[in-house]
Amino acid sequence: MNKRLLLLSNSTNPGELYLGWPAKHIKDFLGEKIKKVLFIPYAGVTITLDDYFHAVSTQFEALGYKMDSAHNMANPQKVLSEYDAITVGGGNTFQLIRLLEDKGLIPAIQNAVLNGMPYIGWSAGSNIASPTIKTTNDMPIVEPASFNAFNFIPFQINPHYTEATLPNHGGESRDVRINEFVTVNQSTNVVCLPEGSLLRYENEQIFFIGKGPCKVFRYAQPIKTFKDGDDLSWLLDEGSQIS
Amino acid sequence: MNKRLLLLSNSTNPGELYLGWPAKHIKDFLGEKIKKVLFIPYAGVTITLDDYFHAVSTQFEALGYKMDSAHNMANPQKVLSEYDAITVGGGNTFQLIRLLEDKGLIPAIQNAVLNGMPYIGWSAGSNIASPTIKTTNDMPIVEPASFNAFNFIPFQINPHYTEATLPNHGGESRDVRINEFVTVNQSTNVVCLPEGSLLRYENEQIFFIGKGPCKVFRYAQPIKTFKDGDDLSWLLDEGSQIS
Repeated sequence: MNKRLLLLSNSTNPGELYLGWPAKHIKDFLGEKIKKVLFIPYAGVTITLDDYFHAVSTQFEALGYKMDSAHNMANPQKVLSEYDAITVGGGNTFQLIRLLEDKGLIPAIQNAVLNGMPYIGWSAGSNIASPTIKTTNDMPIVEPASFNAFNFIPFQINPHYTEATLPNHGGESRDVRINEFVTVNQSTNVVCLPEGSLLRYENEQIFFIGKGPCKVFRYAQPIKTFKDGDDLSWLLDEGSQIS
Repeated sequence: MNKRLLLLSNSTNPGELYLGWPAKHIKDFLGEKIKKVLFIPYAGVTITLDDYFHAVSTQFEALGYKMDSAHNMANPQKVLSEYDAITVGGGNTFQLIRLLEDKGLIPAIQNAVLNGMPYIGWSAGSNIASPTIKTTNDMPIVEPASFNAFNFIPFQINPHYTEATLPNHGGESRDVRINEFVTVNQSTNVVCLPEGSLLRYENEQIFFIGKGPCKVFRYAQPIKTFKDGDDLSWLLDEGSQIS
């Protein structure tokens, strides 16, 4: 009903302090009424979850929010309702969804967010706001029970989007990969978020904010391109893929 | 017993004709006795399977081999034994394993190869010779029933391996991704094949051939580096990850 999402492409641009560019967007999104934020660090693989939580909570506390981490709780789903907002960090999407499954957190977080708890994600944390994890850029290092994700939005996000390719390398470009996705998933749009950009969803509207262009891939349709401040609410309509 | 594998990183180097650099290796591996080769085109997504088969069979026929494609057969597993070798092309690894599962081909091909049918793969086709598809570079555009693959070798292959990264882009490098894999799969080695290189397995021995270096990632161990002609048979020993 009153779903509120802030879906960031990435945590940090080159040369910035950690969570640099998102800070003002996080503050604007959470505002002054929010006090306690629950952090989900499970996407972290080559960093300890303690270190990950320390890095993130330092920035959130500087913005005026108290933060706890799910990895320090025996049953995070039982205390979810004590928090005012939830934040899911990046890392490996497969590891993230696998641990959310194992801990029974997917329905609990879905329920909280559908009932109005503000949700912030970046990278893997934005990916899983989509219906599935099928547009992640990550290596499938662990096997989840399912590719199904939170399904807060009716389209897929591709974070860290770039058109750039490595010279003299035959691996698929990002555009080739996303074209593969829409070829086998013809009714699902893909919204590409370049680094330094985000989607903000509230009041049943969705806006693209930040460094563009934001490209939308649709099966057998020309790519649509959007810029800072553009309204993408049309993506929320059923059948938007043939608009 | 008499397993024979030719596992190529990629089909074609920049500026070459299709299947350019592998041609001499394929001819040397298949030799003169092989007549009929079965092609598995299922990794193809944005190319029609007819077009894919045409491109590959043109090259194999130029080398003196007759080729048929599984996508033109109602029950390819029933006629597998009529062929002298099997070739699995690249594309999307998730699509490939999903279609092999759907057509019941995984046990049939495993059985044929374990009984001596020579196997050639490139890119996704080399990936699936590993125990799982967990070191693919591909986007998970479809959900397979399982990440389990042919398991012809006791380690993972990473094809199209490169150390290069995109400037000013925060996405994970290949090395970061493979380090994530060995962090959560500590007993499994990863053999990285740069483009223009391959592994050749026969007589219970395995050699690295082509443009190096070939890097082997092992959990909590220094990366080992190999060059053209090096013997990697030590990877076939149980417990090789702690050698």
